[in-house]
Amino acid sequence: MYEILKTINGPADVKKLNIGQLKTLAGDIREALFNRLTKIGGHCGPNFGIVETEIAMHYVFNSPEDKFVFDVSHQSYPHKMLTGRKAGYIDETHFKDDSGYTNPEESEHDLFNVGHTSTSVSLATGLAKARDLKGQKYNVVALIGDGSLSGGEALEALDFVGSDLNSNLIIIVNDNQQSIAEVHGGLYKNLAELRQTKGKSEHNFFKTLGLDYVYEENGNDIEAMIRILQKVKDTDHPIVVHINTQKGKGFELAEKNREAWHWCMPFDRETGCWNVTFPAESYTGLTAQYVMNKAKSDKDFVVITPAMPMTAGLSLDLRQQLGAQYVDTGITEEHAVAMASGVAKTGGKPLLVTNATFIQRTYDQISQDVCINNNPVTILLNYASFEGLTDVTHLGIFAIAAFSNIPNLVILSPTSKEEYLNMLDWSVEQKEHPVMILMPGNAVTSRAADKDFSAINTYKVEQAGEKIAILALGDFYQRGEELAQKITKELGFNPTLINPRFASGVDERLLADLQRNHQLIITLEDGVTEGGFGQKIAAFYADKNMKVKIYGLRKEFYDRYNPQELLKQLGMLPEQIIADIKKII
Amino acid sequence: MYEILKTINGPADVKKLNIGQLKTLAGDIREALFNRLTKIGGHCGPNFGIVETEIAMHYVFNSPEDKFVFDVSHQSYPHKMLTGRKAGYIDETHFKDDSGYTNPEESEHDLFNVGHTSTSVSLATGLAKARDLKGQKYNVVALIGDGSLSGGEALEALDFVGSDLNSNLIIIVNDNQQSIAEVHGGLYKNLAELRQTKGKSEHNFFKTLGLDYVYEENGNDIEAMIRILQKVKDTDHPIVVHINTQKGKGFELAEKNREAWHWCMPFDRETGCWNVTFPAESYTGLTAQYVMNKAKSDKDFVVITPAMPMTAGLSLDLRQQLGAQYVDTGITEEHAVAMASGVAKTGGKPLLVTNATFIQRTYDQISQDVCINNNPVTILLNYASFEGLTDVTHLGIFAIAAFSNIPNLVILSPTSKEEYLNMLDWSVEQKEHPVMILMPGNAVTSRAADKDFSAINTYKVEQAGEKIAILALGDFYQRGEELAQKITKELGFNPTLINPRFASGVDERLLADLQRNHQLIITLEDGVTEGGFGQKIAAFYADKNMKVKIYGLRKEFYDRYNPQELLKQLGMLPEQIIADIKKII
Repeated sequence: MYEILKTINGPADVKKLNIGQLKTLAGDIREALFNRLTKIGGHCGPNFGIVETEIAMHYVFNSPEDKFVFDVSHQSYPHKMLTGRKAGYIDETHFKDDSGYTNPEESEHDLFNVGHTSTSVSLATGLAKARDLKGQKYNVVALIGDGSLSGGEALEALDFVGSDLNSNLIIIVNDNQQSIAEVHGGLYKNLAELRQTKGKSEHNFFKTLGLDYVYEENGNDIEAMIRILQKVKDTDHPIVVHINTQKGKGFELAEKNREAWHWCMPFDRETGCWNVTFPAESYTGLTAQYVMNKAKSDKDFVVITPAMPMTAGLSLDLRQQLGAQYVDTGITEEHAVAMASGVAKTGGKPLLVTNATFIQRTYDQISQDVCINNNPVTILLNYASFEGLTDVTHLGIFAIAAFSNIPNLVILSPTSKEEYLNMLDWSVEQKEHPVMILMPGNAVTSRAADKDFSAINTYKVEQAGEKIAILALGDFYQRGEELAQKITKELGFNPTLINPRFASGVDERLLADLQRNHQLIITLEDGVTEGGFGQKIAAFYADKNMKVKIYGLRKEFYDRYNPQELLKQLGMLPEQIIADIKKII
Repeated sequence: MYEILKTINGPADVKKLNIGQLKTLAGDIREALFNRLTKIGGHCGPNFGIVETEIAMHYVFNSPEDKFVFDVSHQSYPHKMLTGRKAGYIDETHFKDDSGYTNPEESEHDLFNVGHTSTSVSLATGLAKARDLKGQKYNVVALIGDGSLSGGEALEALDFVGSDLNSNLIIIVNDNQQSIAEVHGGLYKNLAELRQTKGKSEHNFFKTLGLDYVYEENGNDIEAMIRILQKVKDTDHPIVVHINTQKGKGFELAEKNREAWHWCMPFDRETGCWNVTFPAESYTGLTAQYVMNKAKSDKDFVVITPAMPMTAGLSLDLRQQLGAQYVDTGITEEHAVAMASGVAKTGGKPLLVTNATFIQRTYDQISQDVCINNNPVTILLNYASFEGLTDVTHLGIFAIAAFSNIPNLVILSPTSKEEYLNMLDWSVEQKEHPVMILMPGNAVTSRAADKDFSAINTYKVEQAGEKIAILALGDFYQRGEELAQKITKELGFNPTLINPRFASGVDERLLADLQRNHQLIITLEDGVTEGGFGQKIAAFYADKNMKVKIYGLRKEFYDRYNPQELLKQLGMLPEQIIADIKKII
């Protein structure tokens, strides 16, 4: 097992091998992928498909003198195995040593922490520019593919490189004919035409941008990959190496169902069954139900997603049922948001769905295309919680801080299934406001909820009490409830418990009213506090006689943390908060 | 004067004219452009060049049933004149009725408030999608050009439209061979090749994305433009109409010097001399001096700008002197920021310069490509002040709220010439932090300043006093000084005056120390307070015995305001603040 892989401690060891041994190494790497992925999950198809390419990269180039930049970097597992980190794949006790993305803290062979798409060409261009300024000579190689090519940042970079960088830059376009879901965009049709013509079609997207171009049909053939990379090594100008690979190569299930196996939970290798059980009811599932019902009854309703249909539970089958009422724009967050604004302008009812971390790319579109124009777009974000994705590049904890300070945008934080669905429906139907809804990150709970949210920034008092008022926002409402009960029990009075519902504004009348019989306000929010909800409350009371204690996350790039341990570190457990209270009142 | 233009009260009046009259109308419109621009300035070259196109658009299509979307919309003056707003151009008393951009509040013929580039195709795609869902029939026309084509949002949209929108959408690409400064990017080379071949080259960027394409060589010929638009009207699929126009057409100076006349201040028509005097010393000029000196002495130093060289005072002559140490990426903010991160990664010293409003497009790149990687990029922003650009689409007042809540980013707010230059130099040289510097928006002032800012979040006490501490951030420092003097005079004690320097963090030790002999903190900041600096201070004191009064702008999309009047409305004049103080202490 891992006969050759065990001998690899760095790229130098790869270069010693003959072709037969390199092929055995590819097999070893796939076994190691199975070993890690079946036990802890991760990105599956992208890594199985890129094994030969990354072996060839390390065989031909000299990392770290030559610089590799991996787009999204979720396909960097083979590269990691070849650069001293095989233990993270073949030895279960070391799985946690490696993140699922490139990480400069792990290795000098990783240049950037990368988790969002379409960044590699720009980053690599910067490396090339610094090299040229210093008069140095080495290769800079960007590996991009898997859907990333349609992102604006990548397109901007390709356009720039095509004319303004007159030095070495090798852009490997890994064409596996699949984004996360199916591919979209005219560019992918051009890639298909280039594959069919073995790179010879006169219609060549890259060439129209001024880029040199070569094609390799056999991207999963080590010899072919070595040959083509040797050909472009030390080039004196930018060149695109378009390679045709098989996503999921070597794992039959992943080859057949490329979308389902893009990323996986721990699974049984033989059956492909994931070794996890999902809750019978989830906010994602509820969203899918809502979407399907709404679409049937209202032809103006349209779901738009930048390649993230599963954040709304929209499986391929459901997408097909939606027909023209479903638009996957591909990985194009900016275009998706602006398009939604256009749809809303003339009476359409757009629901844009994606992950909180990815919506960051549309700060400007939300501000300019949507909010200045005050068009009634609904943006629904999944994983906007500290309990969601915990990789540093995928944190959803910045959503409130980033977007709650944009005028006109109404951010809704629902606290239960009923409130969530009512907010969704209200938002899609109303014509007055751009709305962002933060899908709760906790388990589904049930509580009666209002149906009308048109009185913007009106908080809901769920329990009227005294001395202390708890403002428990969104999916932290249940924590507020628990805290309120503990206060009653331990301190002997009933605090006020408030469901703010609106993360983006202040209920000034209610807050003023609380001054009558409260001396301390506690805010709880599922996100960083700087720029967030609690600071708005503190600002309201800043020149008044009221103490405010803000609970939430710090302004930090947390990475692969345990959510419950983090809460404790932040002093957010109910008993910790009660200890704080005792000090203040 | 304005013989034909005077008869035009809407598009219907344009349709009545014969070709000869339409040509006279074009002349009238140019006269009206001169009338407005010589007196109040505005976008010049883009409007002179597009006169015939917009006449033809209104002649051929039926706005507002057919929908026009203008990219950036700084070229919409002729359109405005043809849609009932000629008074804003021919009658000085009505100049202020019209903004310099499309504005739905002005006319049903304007669909969006637009001021940032590269949005038109996405917005138009949304209109087309809503139309198709409703089963309606009309033309949707996007007019894009003038450099906007290289922006990621536009490229994403073109890619999407090329394959996924199978209905009417007409994209007029106004090719005037000029961005604001010179054009960059391979795409522009392809446009040149298409011009040279009269649209026949087999290398066609648009066609590689699956778009239909036609070319019109004579974009300033009304008959030709009418002919080509009639040809594509009612098309059942997306089509690109590539037109060749002359930027500044009909104004000789603007034809010759296209960059200088892209936008203008009031000027003398004969001499071209601008009727304004600039201060002998400006922060822009100081920046240019710094850049030139630094570049000479340090070959690792490179200025990167997404098409905004003049924000750093870099005229064409200076850019040429900088050679390889100057990179204009074209209108590609995302790529520019990520490229800067790459440059910094391997020891280059990148200084990225642009306007505060445009950096919004890079929230995600600053967070992910720069700050998670903690690469020492310096981002220098001009017009990050309420005294800068006052159009709603160009406000710089959101910079602190948007970016001060991103971990690792150090935002510096200098208070004088010396501090500004020292901060610039410190930032470019250090290797520990990504830094954003907000160029002061007030007149240049001189004060001694520190040279080392490596003690992050250390505020500077400029005057130690009692009772009240004024935290006067950046270019509001001088307002703080004035307030301090007034307090001494009117209230009879010396307040503490603090120059925070760091807009992105809190000096916890100093703030704690202030509790000894202060009872009120006043924060002054040049931006919206929500998510901004003052709220961080209020949050620090929220559970302590200290009152905080936060002064700054509200979370609002202000539009074409008078800065001094706004200050008064906000209660920020020194006498107003003193009245507040008297109420609190």
